[in-house]
Amino acid sequence: MAKSPEEEHPQKVFGWAARDSSGSLSPFHFSRRHEMVGVVTKTGKSVTKFKEGDSVGVGVIVGSCNTCETCQQDLENYCPKVIFTYNSHNHDKTKTYGGYSDMIVVDHRFVLRFPDNLPPDSGAPLLCAGITVYSPMKYYGMTEPGKHLGVAGLGGLGHIAVKIGKAFGLKVTVISTSPAKEDEAINRLGADSFVVSTDPAQVKAAMGTMDYIIDTVSAVHALAPLIGLLKLNGKLVTVGLPNKPLELPIFPLVLGRKLVGGSDIGGIKETQEMLDFCAKHNITSEIELIKMDYINTAMERLAKSDVRYRFVIDVGNSFSQ
Amino acid sequence: MAKSPEEEHPQKVFGWAARDSSGSLSPFHFSRRHEMVGVVTKTGKSVTKFKEGDSVGVGVIVGSCNTCETCQQDLENYCPKVIFTYNSHNHDKTKTYGGYSDMIVVDHRFVLRFPDNLPPDSGAPLLCAGITVYSPMKYYGMTEPGKHLGVAGLGGLGHIAVKIGKAFGLKVTVISTSPAKEDEAINRLGADSFVVSTDPAQVKAAMGTMDYIIDTVSAVHALAPLIGLLKLNGKLVTVGLPNKPLELPIFPLVLGRKLVGGSDIGGIKETQEMLDFCAKHNITSEIELIKMDYINTAMERLAKSDVRYRFVIDVGNSFSQ
Repeated sequence: MAKSPEEEHPQKVFGWAARDSSGSLSPFHFSRRHEMVGVVTKTGKSVTKFKEGDSVGVGVIVGSCNTCETCQQDLENYCPKVIFTYNSHNHDKTKTYGGYSDMIVVDHRFVLRFPDNLPPDSGAPLLCAGITVYSPMKYYGMTEPGKHLGVAGLGGLGHIAVKIGKAFGLKVTVISTSPAKEDEAINRLGADSFVVSTDPAQVKAAMGTMDYIIDTVSAVHALAPLIGLLKLNGKLVTVGLPNKPLELPIFPLVLGRKLVGGSDIGGIKETQEMLDFCAKHNITSEIELIKMDYINTAMERLAKSDVRYRFVIDVGNSFSQ
Repeated sequence: MAKSPEEEHPQKVFGWAARDSSGSLSPFHFSRRHEMVGVVTKTGKSVTKFKEGDSVGVGVIVGSCNTCETCQQDLENYCPKVIFTYNSHNHDKTKTYGGYSDMIVVDHRFVLRFPDNLPPDSGAPLLCAGITVYSPMKYYGMTEPGKHLGVAGLGGLGHIAVKIGKAFGLKVTVISTSPAKEDEAINRLGADSFVVSTDPAQVKAAMGTMDYIIDTVSAVHALAPLIGLLKLNGKLVTVGLPNKPLELPIFPLVLGRKLVGGSDIGGIKETQEMLDFCAKHNITSEIELIKMDYINTAMERLAKSDVRYRFVIDVGNSFSQ
């Protein structure tokens, strides 16, 4: 007879979870295998890559089929059987419960070595925001020093894109609806310039000047002005997920040999490469460190985009069962 | 005092042109410098590349600034000062009158060497249709033997895309609204398979199977089904020019790391490369050869897409002044 999930994975775990449709999170005991940045407490007998005490990270994915063509190309993130760290199902049909908890058991192939000089708190968001903008920059060839990168939307993803773009030696312009973010974009994050996307004069002045744009905006928005900002052969890559189709003007795409592409996080090998790149260039996320009992307030603030730029939960210091 | 266009370019020419808004063409005498496939009758004193009697072609462009970064990269077709062969203006503001005439004077830099084994009539359309599909296949990396190319729309551009795709060693599937074209696509043009884009079952069966798609459709149409036909990392390149924006669904672009790009004809150097490639692989256009006095009937039939696949005017045998 098949074992129950609890028998198969007997590790008892304590965490916080939304347990009804209100979305409000409360303390929760459950049985799990999976979870962000922490220290290895135990390894399976065939694991040679990690040992007790190692600093490690777990990103958005904790499993995949490991056998398909996509997995063979280190693109587990695009595997049809990918298992996300949260709101997903393990191979044995049990749920993945995310990382708001005191421990997690993860297949060693999906564990990242966390560089020593990356702070665990401000480094943790790189495991999602960092790889989400790093991967398309590599894949679409948006890393040629001296080229001009536009970053549309200055949030969790956008502010990391600015830092990674600068580390690649690019000129970086932030494109935002919020004039108030200009000072921060330039003086704190290191952007070279700022375009208020709702100001026609500013947009016009920047037309045809950019080689690449990373579009992090998830709201429905106009692509035409962004495409207009691109030079000949310009590349606009969207990593946001608007829930309705966007209007795509074809003339400027054809006449300027431009492209609009998409990209979704990244594979494990590239995520390790990104972490090492960020460690080398001292790139971290701007964060607000909170304790677990602040989580519901944080969720409310997130819904209003009231965070610069990522909440990070200090799980280790939140649980004292 | 500046010379008049007639004084500057004293070569008298006879052709056919639409001279009022009816669009109907009639015989026309004019003064010109520019024009398709023919034989060199005279060269300027500094021209060394061509000599009297050479078979040559002239494509969609007859001039550009020759100095900008775009021109330096052999992309005269994207030069902001590009001069098209018809409905355009020369540097001296005179009009370019196209090629429905007995001769043309062209800057030698915009003249192509026409390969000996390419028939002038069925080879001539390559100068537009051929380069328009060849250039994006090279630029976007759509030439890897064994990969699967979809060709959306089986007209002047599409039928050449099928032949060039096969010459690159691709598997080629035609995607068309017209079931009646299946036999021709496969048995005459050499396509491997055919998908009727209005048949949901056929589209569903082909989902996620294509590496590349060349979209030649100029009517407003849905991109979502085409994007759905693509595999991970698939590329959809549009060379048609719908006059309204198309709906672009972002989720499949992001989740499948797909791209939608554009491309517009090609530069002179690449056009020569394409002609040589077509000559080597015996690629020509399917044509209907007409005399000049059939032109208005041909225009009417073009408006109804009633041609397989290009009208070619036998100018040399049409004029007997």
